[in-house]
Amino acid sequence: MASQAAEAGPKKKLVLNAFVEMCSGHQSPGLWRHPEDKSWEFDKIEHWVELAKLLEDAKFHGIFIADVLGGYDVYKKSLEPALVSGAQWPVTEPLAVVPAMAAATKSIGFGVTISTTYEQPYHLARRLSTVDHLTNGRVGWNIVTSYLDSAARNLGREEQPAHDDRYAQAEEYLKVMYKLFNSSWRDDAVQLDRERGVYTAPELVRQINHNGRFFRVPGPHIVHPSPQRTPLLLQAGTSRAGKQFAAQHAEAIFVSAHSPAVVARNIAEVRQIARDSFGRDPTSIKVLALVTPILGATEEEARAKLADYRRYASHEGALALFGGWTGIDLNQYGDDEELRQVESNAVRSTVEGYARFSPHNSKWTKHTVAEHVSIGGNGPVIVGTPAQVADGLETWVREADVDGFNFAYALFPQSFKDIIDLLLPELRRRGLFWDDYAVPGGTYRENFYGVAGQKYPPDNHVAAKYRWRAGVPAAEHQIPE
Amino acid sequence: MASQAAEAGPKKKLVLNAFVEMCSGHQSPGLWRHPEDKSWEFDKIEHWVELAKLLEDAKFHGIFIADVLGGYDVYKKSLEPALVSGAQWPVTEPLAVVPAMAAATKSIGFGVTISTTYEQPYHLARRLSTVDHLTNGRVGWNIVTSYLDSAARNLGREEQPAHDDRYAQAEEYLKVMYKLFNSSWRDDAVQLDRERGVYTAPELVRQINHNGRFFRVPGPHIVHPSPQRTPLLLQAGTSRAGKQFAAQHAEAIFVSAHSPAVVARNIAEVRQIARDSFGRDPTSIKVLALVTPILGATEEEARAKLADYRRYASHEGALALFGGWTGIDLNQYGDDEELRQVESNAVRSTVEGYARFSPHNSKWTKHTVAEHVSIGGNGPVIVGTPAQVADGLETWVREADVDGFNFAYALFPQSFKDIIDLLLPELRRRGLFWDDYAVPGGTYRENFYGVAGQKYPPDNHVAAKYRWRAGVPAAEHQIPE
Repeated sequence: MASQAAEAGPKKKLVLNAFVEMCSGHQSPGLWRHPEDKSWEFDKIEHWVELAKLLEDAKFHGIFIADVLGGYDVYKKSLEPALVSGAQWPVTEPLAVVPAMAAATKSIGFGVTISTTYEQPYHLARRLSTVDHLTNGRVGWNIVTSYLDSAARNLGREEQPAHDDRYAQAEEYLKVMYKLFNSSWRDDAVQLDRERGVYTAPELVRQINHNGRFFRVPGPHIVHPSPQRTPLLLQAGTSRAGKQFAAQHAEAIFVSAHSPAVVARNIAEVRQIARDSFGRDPTSIKVLALVTPILGATEEEARAKLADYRRYASHEGALALFGGWTGIDLNQYGDDEELRQVESNAVRSTVEGYARFSPHNSKWTKHTVAEHVSIGGNGPVIVGTPAQVADGLETWVREADVDGFNFAYALFPQSFKDIIDLLLPELRRRGLFWDDYAVPGGTYRENFYGVAGQKYPPDNHVAAKYRWRAGVPAAEHQIPE
Repeated sequence: MASQAAEAGPKKKLVLNAFVEMCSGHQSPGLWRHPEDKSWEFDKIEHWVELAKLLEDAKFHGIFIADVLGGYDVYKKSLEPALVSGAQWPVTEPLAVVPAMAAATKSIGFGVTISTTYEQPYHLARRLSTVDHLTNGRVGWNIVTSYLDSAARNLGREEQPAHDDRYAQAEEYLKVMYKLFNSSWRDDAVQLDRERGVYTAPELVRQINHNGRFFRVPGPHIVHPSPQRTPLLLQAGTSRAGKQFAAQHAEAIFVSAHSPAVVARNIAEVRQIARDSFGRDPTSIKVLALVTPILGATEEEARAKLADYRRYASHEGALALFGGWTGIDLNQYGDDEELRQVESNAVRSTVEGYARFSPHNSKWTKHTVAEHVSIGGNGPVIVGTPAQVADGLETWVREADVDGFNFAYALFPQSFKDIIDLLLPELRRRGLFWDDYAVPGGTYRENFYGVAGQKYPPDNHVAAKYRWRAGVPAAEHQIPE
């Protein structure tokens, strides 16, 4: 099968994921109250199996599952607003549901958010390798370092580690994972040689003997090489430390901002660091933007849908989410207070960021912020006909250099059905989306790059040098430090 | 539906589980070489989905999945014998595959082995509650404290903690789990009240504020009450600390020994401690014995099967497993050395235990031990016609007071097919096994006890007092210490 790149022509074909979390009303708190919404059935296995089948029929690249390990208790210094509104609370564990979805599908990928902060790498490497086997190579790992104190307190710490320390630990964590995934077993170590009675050739498995600042892991990895060995690596950081991390490790970068102009500079910077500091092909890093499309056959119909959704959106839930994302408790401000004039730099610049690209408000109070993020969270809501939404997406591609989108829902699963029924035909008409998987039945990575045989990270990715390849004697493959 | 006990008549109906692990040749190392064996396909999702469907059609109570977190490297002080023979190596993570099996079934339960030694309770409580939701209440937790140094070294320790410390930690671990599962949310906390806009009633969720020697967990639990709240609790310890633990916590106790006489005393002791120290109904604790049946239409055919299997069994793999289970490296002894006369007490008494109930050997060398455990591990192999095997099982019920069996396979899945085709009809003829689940579509616990509505541990189980029941004000339910 030819690569997608060779077939693509002048327009780059988009990578499209559904963006979900194992909670109700993920980026649109409160919409579980809408009569058509089923997001509150997230604890049922059929909910996920049906979603996976729906999206695979439509040829989505993957399902990107967000996660948090604690509650959003910054706003009002209380968990109560999140509890009442159901804003990302309760939240179940995302890796658990992937094998059920995998058993019902063949080609769609699964990007799962898991923190490097609270689980031993040996343990997580085993969980991920297991799921990579069970999905036949369709697992991706969205690497996060966690941002909620509420999670840290429950996992044996007083508060979360300092941001840059989290990244220092994450850097070492990734090294341990690369070693376990790639250096411990040779590609061809499992022989199943019935004549000689050799299940695994003992000279093709070795310890990794990692001795670092945070971790000491002798190995070997307890799981044999899985189809991708390293899961597809996804990352979302746009802080300074986050950019360095993404530029080295991420195969896909997930961005959320209300305007392409905001992310264009970040993306350009990450691509430059990737090329200059890490010798990577900057175009090989795919950037995916959060977007919540609201679609109608006419613009009027789409706008009516949005107005209907807004009747159910929870402002308290939105302020709870905003508090967790930014660390800012907007409850300290009065109902009419203009947030672009308060003392706090962080508040002023965050709200200014919203205001600059939002046409409709002269004054920005906490209620304006709540309305702004209560549907679609920190990303844009693009409302209109299929042509209008496709135009909006093309603007993001042109202005921000993104390669695809993580589509959030307002209503589950109706928003995805609207995308499938209305938007995808328009994107296909424009040559922006494929008709079928590049590699049906292939790994997440093969379909992500559109290249049959691309099961492992590209040769210029840091993981490549860790991989102990078939046929190479141990002495000729030193495990990188 | 009436309780099973009421229908049982004079004979108690057996609880039957399949005993497996996510590795090849679980209790019968080397049998992956047999042309009919498929145990080496353990890394494929269809392998497990098909097993679950097969066993549910036959009305097995559950699938009991063993686990280890490291390799068997005591024998010859090396992992090599386990690598070559494939003896429980590699091993993938068991909880991952449960949702895939659950999506294809309705009534069968899943008992999953997970250690209390290496994962934060808040994290594991979340994983287990998630899977209890996704399985609609069909998860069981086989609580282990781990016994392999090779696991400890990879999980941030120099060696495993001392045995009794592991149990002290496990005791506290269970308390944290009970609090998270049962005390943090009231049964009816999730309201989904669309009129009032209340997803979860905030006054019905509270912190647990656990402050102990090993763990500090404020809570609340991040997952709402699942169908069973507490997974069905399984345990396998028969040490002194293990018995105390089992007598308090276990709803099912898993024993493995070559003779009913060996376990009869242990079982009697655990039941007595359960009654005297913990106020439990001793008959409510179900004891399940490891058995590997080898079945034929005639005794001759069954014996020929066993002889055939023995040709493939790996003695090196068996000695590796024996080393991990006992801590004894038999490689230090000569080929002809009589192990009942060596200096080590541990070796003498272990081998004497085998010899006392094994008819066929006058001399016990390391090779005799290897042959002895290379099929069926540490449990009995019962060979013969369905009537002979059923007689053997009845002997265990009569002499050791067991309530059921964990059936290990020699060949996967053929051994289970033999059990289904040959043994179960005989057991049913004798009134020893049900025709259908007591509660089709019910929870693991309801079917385990045979009582519709028994979703939670019985009222005289320690977990019961942790449960915050519907309708009870917070002030009237103090969280037990």
